Amino acid sequence: MSEYAANGTRSGGAGQPANRAESSATGTLYGLGVGPGDPELLTVKAFRILKQSPVIAYPRKKSGAQSYALKIAETYVDTTAKEMLGLTFPMTKDREALEKSWNKTVDAVWEHLAAGRDVAFLTEGDPMLYSTFIHMMRFLKQRHPEAKTVSVPGISSVNASASRLGIPLADGDERIAIVPATDDYGAVREAIEEHDCVVFIKVAKVIDLMLQVLGDLGLTDKAAVLTKVTSAEESVWLDVRELQGRQLEYLTLMVVRK
Amino acid sequence: MSEYAANGTRSGGAGQPANRAESSATGTLYGLGVGPGDPELLTVKAFRILKQSPVIAYPRKKSGAQSYALKIAETYVDTTAKEMLGLTFPMTKDREALEKSWNKTVDAVWEHLAAGRDVAFLTEGDPMLYSTFIHMMRFLKQRHPEAKTVSVPGISSVNASASRLGIPLADGDERIAIVPATDDYGAVREAIEEHDCVVFIKVAKVIDLMLQVLGDLGLTDKAAVLTKVTSAEESVWLDVRELQGRQLEYLTLMVVRK
Repeated sequence: MSEYAANGTRSGGAGQPANRAESSATGTLYGLGVGPGDPELLTVKAFRILKQSPVIAYPRKKSGAQSYALKIAETYVDTTAKEMLGLTFPMTKDREALEKSWNKTVDAVWEHLAAGRDVAFLTEGDPMLYSTFIHMMRFLKQRHPEAKTVSVPGISSVNASASRLGIPLADGDERIAIVPATDDYGAVREAIEEHDCVVFIKVAKVIDLMLQVLGDLGLTDKAAVLTKVTSAEESVWLDVRELQGRQLEYLTLMVVRK
Repeated sequence: MSEYAANGTRSGGAGQPANRAESSATGTLYGLGVGPGDPELLTVKAFRILKQSPVIAYPRKKSGAQSYALKIAETYVDTTAKEMLGLTFPMTKDREALEKSWNKTVDAVWEHLAAGRDVAFLTEGDPMLYSTFIHMMRFLKQRHPEAKTVSVPGISSVNASASRLGIPLADGDERIAIVPATDDYGAVREAIEEHDCVVFIKVAKVIDLMLQVLGDLGLTDKAAVLTKVTSAEESVWLDVRELQGRQLEYLTLMVVRK
């Protein structure tokens, strides 16, 4: 675990949360999980850190585009009283372009941290589960190894979907997997066969394949699909047959519970 | 999903949370996730429902024994102003004894619901992930199909451990599994081999076997163990070799991140 243990975590230690900001000149970068959509699913801790942080950073697809995470947090934040730092993350696999863009982003954040200002970086769901904060943390540490980062866990859409549906993710000796959906029939089928419950994220692009696998396994009635769960724009499909050939939003997941 | 769809969930529906209490004579049973240990990791929603519910039910091992979930919630609840309902769940596989005990528990809860009182049932972590609430919900619905239940998601120790360690559970195309540890060498090994990250719960009883698997796979340095994560009694081991032959508490998990 050595590569991850640079944040004040210690063996056998009890008591204080990890990565705690110590009194010093530089600020702390908080990865703040704001939950799946319903602003009430924010934690008390995230609420406190939102209030205390002078700088609120949030991801946005394009300059000026709306941020799902920010929309959740706006219930609690007076954005006119904070320094709002909208960060754009390029959707490219070009390594050079990616690095250039990330360096720019890291510099924008570091400027505040170096000046002693805490930065709350908003992430929908949980910061350690398929989140931009994972990359933010990594690139920041690469460029500024002395940077202090703290991740504040949030309710993920996985947990929220189970509560929304009223179905257990796992109980007793059951095994659950969280898997990004792919267009690989065999991989999707195997994931379902080998676990009692699978939550597939990013199903929008491969929904027809998913339906085929479910049909072949006789499990079509054991699946549900949810978009932007618990938010005002939530959609839930208990009969996934309705989704054949349908366009779905990016923030869509499927729960398969045997 | 028909067996789980009895709570007002609907296909294609948007907007309101599922299982919403409707105005009627009976109360609602809330499965309230109070998070992994740190009281600040309670959600705003759980906080509100705690305040509003006249009856707080909590699991305890034996009559009079302390409840981990209650300890977390006590930060927010004036227990002298609420009806506190301590529920004992027997650790037996005797079906008859189990059924008798559950019927008694369900009756104690139903008495309040039938009288129009909401009951907040506290669960550590998330109510849909290895929680007593899963059984509570099932037994209640069996005996009183008209009962209204709502699950309020909570931060699970899985998500909290990742934040505590500062390691991603999953990113990009990675797959994560949550698996109860068993004394089956092959099953433990396979779970690690087939996922980018595995969180093993209930590792206390099989820690030596887990260490053997890790050693055989050359992954000893890729594991960490956490007990009662984020609570005041938290322990974290980044070097899991220290745990050889050691007695561990029940609420102990292992994160293996390749």
